[in-house]
Amino acid sequence: MTGGTGRLGRRRLLGAASLAGGGLVAGAAGAQAVGATRAESGRWTGRSIPFDGEHQAGILAPPAAHGRFTAFDLEPKAGRAEVTALLKAWTDAARRLTAGAPVPGDAPTGYGPASLTVTVGFGASLLRRIGAPVPAELEPLPAFPRDAIDPRRSDGDLGVLVTADDAFVVAHALRVLAAAGRGTARPRWQMTGFSTADGTGATPRNLMGQPDGSGNPRPDDPGFGRKVFAAGPAWMRGGSYLVFRRIRMLLDDWERLPRHRREQIIGRRADTGAPLSGGTESTAPDLRKQNPDGSLAIAASAHVRQSSPLSNSGATLLRKGLSYFDGYRPDGAPDAGLLFIAFQADPRDGFTRVQQRLARADDLSRFVRHESSALFAVPHGCRPGRYLGQDLMEGR
Amino acid sequence: MTGGTGRLGRRRLLGAASLAGGGLVAGAAGAQAVGATRAESGRWTGRSIPFDGEHQAGILAPPAAHGRFTAFDLEPKAGRAEVTALLKAWTDAARRLTAGAPVPGDAPTGYGPASLTVTVGFGASLLRRIGAPVPAELEPLPAFPRDAIDPRRSDGDLGVLVTADDAFVVAHALRVLAAAGRGTARPRWQMTGFSTADGTGATPRNLMGQPDGSGNPRPDDPGFGRKVFAAGPAWMRGGSYLVFRRIRMLLDDWERLPRHRREQIIGRRADTGAPLSGGTESTAPDLRKQNPDGSLAIAASAHVRQSSPLSNSGATLLRKGLSYFDGYRPDGAPDAGLLFIAFQADPRDGFTRVQQRLARADDLSRFVRHESSALFAVPHGCRPGRYLGQDLMEGR
Repeated sequence: MTGGTGRLGRRRLLGAASLAGGGLVAGAAGAQAVGATRAESGRWTGRSIPFDGEHQAGILAPPAAHGRFTAFDLEPKAGRAEVTALLKAWTDAARRLTAGAPVPGDAPTGYGPASLTVTVGFGASLLRRIGAPVPAELEPLPAFPRDAIDPRRSDGDLGVLVTADDAFVVAHALRVLAAAGRGTARPRWQMTGFSTADGTGATPRNLMGQPDGSGNPRPDDPGFGRKVFAAGPAWMRGGSYLVFRRIRMLLDDWERLPRHRREQIIGRRADTGAPLSGGTESTAPDLRKQNPDGSLAIAASAHVRQSSPLSNSGATLLRKGLSYFDGYRPDGAPDAGLLFIAFQADPRDGFTRVQQRLARADDLSRFVRHESSALFAVPHGCRPGRYLGQDLMEGR
Repeated sequence: MTGGTGRLGRRRLLGAASLAGGGLVAGAAGAQAVGATRAESGRWTGRSIPFDGEHQAGILAPPAAHGRFTAFDLEPKAGRAEVTALLKAWTDAARRLTAGAPVPGDAPTGYGPASLTVTVGFGASLLRRIGAPVPAELEPLPAFPRDAIDPRRSDGDLGVLVTADDAFVVAHALRVLAAAGRGTARPRWQMTGFSTADGTGATPRNLMGQPDGSGNPRPDDPGFGRKVFAAGPAWMRGGSYLVFRRIRMLLDDWERLPRHRREQIIGRRADTGAPLSGGTESTAPDLRKQNPDGSLAIAASAHVRQSSPLSNSGATLLRKGLSYFDGYRPDGAPDAGLLFIAFQADPRDGFTRVQQRLARADDLSRFVRHESSALFAVPHGCRPGRYLGQDLMEGR
């Protein structure tokens, strides 16, 4: 993947090195870099994904290189009027930031929006606070076997997913949103995830080394809209339910396994992501295929089989996971894994159904721990001039 | 910064959206993104900075979009032989990873090296462990006024700075290094930083909104080499001393200040980074310039004045700071700020001299807290076939 560097490339490289000036010291290590520079390619940080649309933009946007998930709790005195003002303020800020426009009172960064998305969801506790009916889809997720949930890093009145292809842009947007919410909502917890900046369209890998999202449904799949987007009430029509799980990976154990064992546990090849039943990454796994010795090509307890819609009455999740790596735990193990984020029309037919199977029968579950959990109702997207959740706040 | 999207761009955008398929749903918000895509520009993730060279590559490399600083402690039983084996293993892994070559036993990510650098330093405690003399430059940093240092997140036998333009590449490299060190060194603490992916060569901004590094020395400045690189002993000739400080920013207080007050405290404009004495970002601050009313253009206690080499007997630091944002503290304040990383020939004439002044007299010091601290001797770079620190291990 290392391309050549022509005369122009070298010159631009020196420009990019203005702080450290790597190219100016004869023989310095920094001077001989080869391949395209960020300066040559940096235009993509100017890319903008429109905020307004039928669905909130974070649901169908391409995988982003960075994301933060933040849960906010309402201040004790905040009621319907304050929540309405908050949603208006967040909508205005998000609409500006995603377009690369300045936010009044904010010191602009000078960076482009870098495909920024801001997706807002409501916890059941917010609906109760404003006296709105709580949809059955928003009933608390059940406890699953092996769960190790930390309640301080779970749930929340509001859940906000901010993604972009630039980590600074994500951090800056969160500061703007937190400032806009001050007095009405305060951050309850925040988690930071990343993927790769390698925007080739390949499925991003997770920290286990595996492409993560190979089996994701595609919008042209039959029933995609019905399985991912809610039908009602009016404020949720075109919305979706977001399940968040912080899933720590026991990487020290995982990395000690030989590659063939890791592939058996997943049910896919580590290099290409192709199912062990053959084909390429995009080939549907053949759960009945047998090896020459009569054994199943995809083992009975493999993750691909246990999580398949075929094993779960058609249950379908649109996953938007991000890796996290928050340093090391007191026992020396990496505090790292997956910020699992999945959208679905009804979690009872989606995440809950799949996870009830995985927690019992999936070989992979011995190498992960679910450490936090949250569920939010993500209302439909905005038309210009309206604000997120306006139908809810107006009783529709 | 939002460019148009031609026919090819649109098609590639759909390719990049394969996971979520944003472009395939008529009217979906994700479909109308404009501007260059990462897929069009992703070549820079293939860029490679050579590991071998006179200096370790992280010192003079251009500012990276991502970095992790990790301190390792030696296992109790590790002595000179084990440290030698560790340095050989780390050198081999770093040399391969920075070139985008596979590491034996590792599952490759398929991503390019993305300008990966791996820079290794030795704490005084490592030198004592192997019975080597401790250079006077490595004597512990003094305590400074206002310090709030957490010893559990300070110091360490080894300090490793890993930077790249891809967050996943950084995380993966750290996993490889940790695995290669297992049994000899264990992570003591790790901190994760970011800058921007906007590789235009502009000085990256910090979370206070200010370009950070405007006054950095440049390799063509008189005396640069003498001020940044150590003269000896042999294992340090061409090496440098690395000061690490985690500097939390009191962002809630900072953001409540009006812009003109923030600019007075820094001594530079927030938008352009130009000194308040006039000119552009690269203009040297004129510390004697007066406003029409006779007041100093750059106030007596402004950060630019207090940190200037003119105020500190010429003290010069090569700074490579990264922002961090680790969520929120129990009191609701953002746990965010700067991972301050500075290279110099002698910390006593560099960081220590400057910080003794800043902690007392710099207006900015009221808006920051130094929460962790470390000092490492970064040996000179490698020639091919040799390993990092070889001169030290061979008694030179």
